[in-house]
Amino acid sequence: MRTLARDIHTHIDEQVTINGWLHKKRLLGGLNFINVRDRSGLVQVLIQEKSEIEKLRGLQIGSVLEIKGKVISDKRAPGGAEIREPGITVIVPVTDEPPIEVDKPISHKSENLDTLFEYRTYGLRNLQETAIFQIQSKICASIRNYFYENDFKEIHTPKLLAAATEGGAEVFKLDYFGQEATLAQSPQFYKQMMVGVFERVFEIAPVYRAEPSATTRHMTEYTSIDGEMGFIDINDLKTFLSGLLNKVVDEVWAKYEPDLKRWNTTKPILPKEIPTLPMSEIHEKYSKANNENTVGELDLRPDEERWICEYAKKHLGSEAVFVSDWPASDMKFYHKSQAENPDLAERVDLLFRGVEITTGSMRENHYGVLIKQLKNKAGGDPKDPGFKYFLQAMQAGMPPHGGFGMGLERLTQKIVGLNNVKEATLFPRDINRLTP
Amino acid sequence: MRTLARDIHTHIDEQVTINGWLHKKRLLGGLNFINVRDRSGLVQVLIQEKSEIEKLRGLQIGSVLEIKGKVISDKRAPGGAEIREPGITVIVPVTDEPPIEVDKPISHKSENLDTLFEYRTYGLRNLQETAIFQIQSKICASIRNYFYENDFKEIHTPKLLAAATEGGAEVFKLDYFGQEATLAQSPQFYKQMMVGVFERVFEIAPVYRAEPSATTRHMTEYTSIDGEMGFIDINDLKTFLSGLLNKVVDEVWAKYEPDLKRWNTTKPILPKEIPTLPMSEIHEKYSKANNENTVGELDLRPDEERWICEYAKKHLGSEAVFVSDWPASDMKFYHKSQAENPDLAERVDLLFRGVEITTGSMRENHYGVLIKQLKNKAGGDPKDPGFKYFLQAMQAGMPPHGGFGMGLERLTQKIVGLNNVKEATLFPRDINRLTP
Repeated sequence: MRTLARDIHTHIDEQVTINGWLHKKRLLGGLNFINVRDRSGLVQVLIQEKSEIEKLRGLQIGSVLEIKGKVISDKRAPGGAEIREPGITVIVPVTDEPPIEVDKPISHKSENLDTLFEYRTYGLRNLQETAIFQIQSKICASIRNYFYENDFKEIHTPKLLAAATEGGAEVFKLDYFGQEATLAQSPQFYKQMMVGVFERVFEIAPVYRAEPSATTRHMTEYTSIDGEMGFIDINDLKTFLSGLLNKVVDEVWAKYEPDLKRWNTTKPILPKEIPTLPMSEIHEKYSKANNENTVGELDLRPDEERWICEYAKKHLGSEAVFVSDWPASDMKFYHKSQAENPDLAERVDLLFRGVEITTGSMRENHYGVLIKQLKNKAGGDPKDPGFKYFLQAMQAGMPPHGGFGMGLERLTQKIVGLNNVKEATLFPRDINRLTP
Repeated sequence: MRTLARDIHTHIDEQVTINGWLHKKRLLGGLNFINVRDRSGLVQVLIQEKSEIEKLRGLQIGSVLEIKGKVISDKRAPGGAEIREPGITVIVPVTDEPPIEVDKPISHKSENLDTLFEYRTYGLRNLQETAIFQIQSKICASIRNYFYENDFKEIHTPKLLAAATEGGAEVFKLDYFGQEATLAQSPQFYKQMMVGVFERVFEIAPVYRAEPSATTRHMTEYTSIDGEMGFIDINDLKTFLSGLLNKVVDEVWAKYEPDLKRWNTTKPILPKEIPTLPMSEIHEKYSKANNENTVGELDLRPDEERWICEYAKKHLGSEAVFVSDWPASDMKFYHKSQAENPDLAERVDLLFRGVEITTGSMRENHYGVLIKQLKNKAGGDPKDPGFKYFLQAMQAGMPPHGGFGMGLERLTQKIVGLNNVKEATLFPRDINRLTP
């Protein structure tokens, strides 16, 4: 029976078997020890027997080992115990020197990112790197549970689409048995269509953007968390998103506090209901405080996004803020404008720690209005195969509905406190990178 | 406050508000009633007031309604209660006649499948169709929970890959800012690479196959459930897969028994440990029983797969069976052969109700052997960008590991008892279909 590193403290003075990777090696003559890494963490092994020490000579970090030995309580060791008098079996020796050191923190400076990704699977064995993706796995699980608790059904919608879609130029195209297909930029139409069936649906799946920009925010492929729900209004959507962010933050911090502290981040301050500020008010506040003039602008500047998050943290006790009252002129054709003020969209953007992490909006659910908006706003043709089936579904009777899409990587980035969304992506893709 | 259809029996003699879709309408003069569908099911509404009946004239199925009324216990009604003396609000009227009837079972005969998919979102509102995808959502949730219970981490790996990959011709290609990219046929290399980090990883995500065939088994896009684990042998993998299939079947049947019975299927008979038969034994048994000769063949014929499943059901008390001892000549370069008999692969296929639902196999974890197999079996070049990073990871020290990939749609198909995998896919993709 194998024992995991995290469990050895429950086997004090017993014989155990550990399987894992050589993570650190100190053969100093007097005091010889190694650290072995398994999926649960590290275990320290003290070695005195000469023949056992000899087995480790020439072995590089990453070698796969089996260790049988006695567990001795030792507060200085990771996990509060270490293994002594081990019998070591080398399962797979590694003799080539690794290209990067696994036991030391790896630089995330922008000039080092290419190295980080070039040797990605080596680097990920560093526990600080591993932590990012353990946290990401937990974020994803928390969000799914939140969807389930709220009676959502999971759906799987196609990413291979007929040529015409909602988006503009930033779409990948491919040959599909002689016709042109595109890669989905979002499951937008499909999730709306499925509201007519399940009322509440979610999907967590890759989406594709042919973004020709190499920034800290853009990737050509990312994991989109999409939710859509019927019989709601914009306030329900805000309540839902407030609950989602609170749950994720609470659960991730409960489980990974030591790892998060290792990244020098703090637990986000979030009230139960995240506060809302209309865009015009943000423009006014920002202009006044910064001796600039953004009043009347149709969007927030990146500087304003950062500033209003700082403001909300200081004055509203929240590191997240909803921005409401976006201009309707900027809407997509399937979005809904406010009943009381058709110049404004039924939309809220959720800003978190300086950036937008999701846009939530209500959709136009009246078929006649939708057709008009398609023609007027998008110049679209209802018979276009990219619209036809979406419109067919909207014609079948659709309740008031709305939803959101959120990038898993960006949310991870903000929770861990990383500079670049790619640092929160196992194998990032951008205009310059298609490997590993 | 809105009440859901499934909850009205807890509000007997109370006033409630129901939101949903007009699902069935019977205005017969003497007895007037409608069924309203929401995400939880149907509720029956008895209407006597003339002015309320008038509101429904000309309204088509699918119209979005709000019903306020009193709940009366009635055993004949769905859910054991119905609503009487309703006040009806038409939220969104549907006046165009739906292209297919939603309240009657929809034919799944092969000649009707095109119609089924052409009007997919209408058809999915039929409760028998809805059930398939409620079951699928549950299958997916059960499998994820099984992964979590077994200490797996969820990963998200790229589907946009550099040109060269493991596969043959059946790969989609696209222009990626001037270079050629391909769509991932599986996360194979990435999940193996991540075993070096997390030991146990899973991913549930789309994969792409440029299959030029229009069969009941092939799609160009499907949802692949991929698991990979380190420090295991082939028996651990079999135990894991036995547990997975048992858990899914138990949980899905516990929650959706009435729906499954509606599809005329039975609960699969599965022992805790699914039995294993070597391929040679299957050939012998099949040849003897069917007066054919498949002995010595390197694969199972589709007829044999069906036959051996019937045999296992009858004689081994299992509707699933592992097939072991596949010829090593058929292996991919990253597969492992048996230590005691290098002519055989460390592989088991899991057959379930007549078809293979997954192939589980051990991977070659010794870098030197792997390089040899790449050159000899696949004629591959270790410096090829499609192999380079995979090999880099395998060089970093990899434990014995293995895993499997399983199509969510095929598993759903077999559990529900459908003929064609596309019937278990919301919006299927094949050589002839890129919409809806």
